[in-house]
Amino acid sequence: MLAWDQKVTMPEGGHPARADQLATLSKVVHERFVDEELGRLLERLRPLEESLDYDSDDGSLIRVTRRDWEKQRRVPTELRVELTRAAALGNQVWIEARATNDFAKFLPALQRNLELKRQYVDCFEWEDSPYTPLLDDFEPHMLTSEVAEVFGTIRPVLAELVQQAPRVDAEFFEQSFEAEKQEEFCKRVLDTLGLEKGSYRLDPTVHPFCTSFSNRDVRMTTRYNETGIDALWSTMHEAGHGHYAHGIADSLQRTPLATSPSLGLNESQSRTWENLVGRSRPFWLHWYERLQDTFPAQLGDVDLETFLAAVNRAEPGLIRVEADETTYSLHIILRFELEQRLVEGSLDPKDLPEAWSAGMADLLGVEVPDDTHGVLQDIHWSQGGIGYFPTYALGNVISLQIWASVREALPDLDAQMEAGELGELAAWLRDNLYSLGRKFTPKETIERITRSPTIDPQPYLAYLREKLAALPAGA
Amino acid sequence: MLAWDQKVTMPEGGHPARADQLATLSKVVHERFVDEELGRLLERLRPLEESLDYDSDDGSLIRVTRRDWEKQRRVPTELRVELTRAAALGNQVWIEARATNDFAKFLPALQRNLELKRQYVDCFEWEDSPYTPLLDDFEPHMLTSEVAEVFGTIRPVLAELVQQAPRVDAEFFEQSFEAEKQEEFCKRVLDTLGLEKGSYRLDPTVHPFCTSFSNRDVRMTTRYNETGIDALWSTMHEAGHGHYAHGIADSLQRTPLATSPSLGLNESQSRTWENLVGRSRPFWLHWYERLQDTFPAQLGDVDLETFLAAVNRAEPGLIRVEADETTYSLHIILRFELEQRLVEGSLDPKDLPEAWSAGMADLLGVEVPDDTHGVLQDIHWSQGGIGYFPTYALGNVISLQIWASVREALPDLDAQMEAGELGELAAWLRDNLYSLGRKFTPKETIERITRSPTIDPQPYLAYLREKLAALPAGA
Repeated sequence: MLAWDQKVTMPEGGHPARADQLATLSKVVHERFVDEELGRLLERLRPLEESLDYDSDDGSLIRVTRRDWEKQRRVPTELRVELTRAAALGNQVWIEARATNDFAKFLPALQRNLELKRQYVDCFEWEDSPYTPLLDDFEPHMLTSEVAEVFGTIRPVLAELVQQAPRVDAEFFEQSFEAEKQEEFCKRVLDTLGLEKGSYRLDPTVHPFCTSFSNRDVRMTTRYNETGIDALWSTMHEAGHGHYAHGIADSLQRTPLATSPSLGLNESQSRTWENLVGRSRPFWLHWYERLQDTFPAQLGDVDLETFLAAVNRAEPGLIRVEADETTYSLHIILRFELEQRLVEGSLDPKDLPEAWSAGMADLLGVEVPDDTHGVLQDIHWSQGGIGYFPTYALGNVISLQIWASVREALPDLDAQMEAGELGELAAWLRDNLYSLGRKFTPKETIERITRSPTIDPQPYLAYLREKLAALPAGA
Repeated sequence: MLAWDQKVTMPEGGHPARADQLATLSKVVHERFVDEELGRLLERLRPLEESLDYDSDDGSLIRVTRRDWEKQRRVPTELRVELTRAAALGNQVWIEARATNDFAKFLPALQRNLELKRQYVDCFEWEDSPYTPLLDDFEPHMLTSEVAEVFGTIRPVLAELVQQAPRVDAEFFEQSFEAEKQEEFCKRVLDTLGLEKGSYRLDPTVHPFCTSFSNRDVRMTTRYNETGIDALWSTMHEAGHGHYAHGIADSLQRTPLATSPSLGLNESQSRTWENLVGRSRPFWLHWYERLQDTFPAQLGDVDLETFLAAVNRAEPGLIRVEADETTYSLHIILRFELEQRLVEGSLDPKDLPEAWSAGMADLLGVEVPDDTHGVLQDIHWSQGGIGYFPTYALGNVISLQIWASVREALPDLDAQMEAGELGELAAWLRDNLYSLGRKFTPKETIERITRSPTIDPQPYLAYLREKLAALPAGA
């Protein structure tokens, strides 16, 4: 709540006190969570856990909470405080360094964050890579080697797809779209996505995100740019996260299970609503005329085929957050490879800009003009968020595995989307995925839907191949 | 923050979880505050306190916190839980009872709240009245007998003033004023009141209030009615509360001293900005033309004298929150007298509607048509807020005592207000009052400004007499 308010409603004068408030509260929460007493209580619950079904709410609650407790207990409070401090300082330095294209300025903060992350890794046991404990914070139970295998499969296919993709005209997006009309249209679409009325809100912010304070109090945010209507897909992306939070079972509310099993699974749903729904032909068969009516000056002369080609095009670029569906995972793979090398010690942080440029040339065939548009573009490393990036691409991959099950269960889905009906899709995903919360591991959760625990990139690659093949041949 | 959000931004679906969140957090805060360890620490600080000036920040911090700790420790946790529960239930029942004009439905909840309040009173020692411990929660160090004396002085004068006040035409307010224009004008005025830019925000809500999360993060709220422009005085009222929070010294932030010494003192400042500034001739000499320009259809033909007479008129009515400056305190006196009798046991709650009607006839000369417009109109009793009402009228009284000192210190104030300049007023009040926070008792605080610790109603009565005498003779 403090964080949401900070990014959405707080007057700027509130920043210093808010930082203190967040620090105090997270300290209090952490102290209470790692208390010996909680460990004793969990121990006393072991017989109960063993007597319960693996699938039961209470059994899961004990099992998952014990894992959390044991994990958090391994990290000394002083290290945790240092990590928090270094993250805050690093973030401050990064803002300046990025604005002035000054990697040297950022380097010491990055080194400090990395050094602390290595100390953090040392609190855990790992088998395949020291990167695994970092990954585990965002994608629990996932090994670095498993991610590497998935990424190893998709890397060459994506690179080839990008290279072969036709050039598509999308210049019509390079116009001004009135912010109030964008907001009105985004809210209109959002209201049809199957979220219960009165359970959510959408607010403007600088860096869109979604959070929730219960399954009936979901806060999505978006950004209305002056140029283009990216706000719409940003809204649908956050609506996917919102759906997850909204769908978690009532019985899990106010427990550690009232969230998704991993960032990858959560991202799979933001990608589902943003891309699999929000860039699909059936969706736009319903909405495109309405969008044209909203922006007649900008889109009156753009036909549906031109529009669909533009929103599904693949085009290499420098910036991850502006990347299209096909190139996006390549941006992630670069970061994953660099992160691993940094953590394993085979890449010196000072050589990062060079490695970045080489990777971008190799993966996307683009030349990086400066660090602001290169290694300094993302906030994550500045605040110690190492191990986070892979979950974005895993989300892309997982979204298509789940989508295959959706398609099987709802053969009528295209017709529903063409009619502007998304309620059945939302209900199916809620009943089969969102409602489970964090009761099961990510793989157990995926298996419940797809009948296989494996993260299989083939549906994702098939989807991209088909999508790109459908684009009109380039100019 | 949870409470502000609940009233300003939360989607309605969030209510059940929010109630749990508020309950959990207040339980945690209470447990930590009444911990034995805090008592031991305060005891260890006694020698330090005795070595420090009475006026020092640290000395005040120890002294005031010890009083808080000792007071809170007297109330058993179970009673506190029961009080919270009864308040929540009472509030729920009141909403229904008020909507259906059904006092009988509300009666059991009121009786329960009263019974618990008596148990609460029994946790304390008192001399003059069992009402004093309740009053002390809102107006610390104040005796019931002192309030009774002040109210005894103003009661007959106010009743007479109201009776003699000329009838003033204010029909022009009974028109529709566009909400967006009201909001724009309110914000325009608010931006000139001497609050630092970027330190506050103003949002619409149902029941306007003000809260703050630091002295640079002040949240004011208001309500834009369809009829009239009460939103403006509501905004200036909340801006007075906002000024208090905004002016508290940096050195007191994040301590128990970072608030006002009492609700009465806080209310004195909301009344100062709402009435002494916001209904004054000099203020409107600057703003009235601007208001006319904003609402030409509604106010183009209303001259300044007519407008000033309307906003300063005295007119008996049934509803406290709609009452004018003169009649307002009479509404409060009725509630204070009834509360005392309820707590002392000389009035049976079932006889409350009758006593209410008799009091309204006696004090304001109005006939109460039903309980919705009578005893059920206020939220306070439903949630156990007994002892709160007197602070409103004390605020009126105190505001004029402080205003006399302001006048002396700023002989130029009228000219400044005529020029639309309120910065010096804000700065003087900040330096002499707001910055002190809760370092001193209410009376000590008043004495620092007025050189007398007595609550003296004469300036208040003189102000009303003068104001009402200046009204044009009635139709």
